[in-house]
Amino acid sequence: MARIVVEVMPKPEILDPQGKAVAGALPRLGFTEFAAVRQGKRFELEVEGEANEEVLDQARKAASEVLSNPVIEDVVSVHWARES
Amino acid sequence: MARIVVEVMPKPEILDPQGKAVAGALPRLGFTEFAAVRQGKRFELEVEGEANEEVLDQARKAASEVLSNPVIEDVVSVHWARES
Repeated sequence: MARIVVEVMPKPEILDPQGKAVAGALPRLGFTEFAAVRQGKRFELEVEGEANEEVLDQARKAASEVLSNPVIEDVVSVHWARES
Repeated sequence: MARIVVEVMPKPEILDPQGKAVAGALPRLGFTEFAAVRQGKRFELEVEGEANEEVLDQARKAASEVLSNPVIEDVVSVHWARES
């Protein structure tokens, strides 16, 4: 069954306490290569029926209306998942 | 500054209440194309210094040791972010 991936991140100007917590933990655990971390969300939508451009358009609409909060988040990608 | 994207999803056999909640909301809001939804996490790591293969290896290590819980989650991707 075809799947669509939706990626959502906090807007750059929005504080991201989860990302900050991870960024603080990494150097304590020996990972010193990373200056900052942001944490967002990744959704996989399983498509019922035909995988066509209209379904992808509907996923884009769902991404901006349901899967993200446009006040604080950006939809950074909506794409078909590679078959695994 | 170079960024690495880490994508983490709940394992297929693990219940995903957030994904289930989204899957239940979508048809009520007019999105009937999707049979199931899974919700995971997406991290962006900002790389301090040179962007080379060793840093990507460190990100893979951080992904499996810090950014995911291997009991319930899979790291599905660790890759360089496209320059935006």
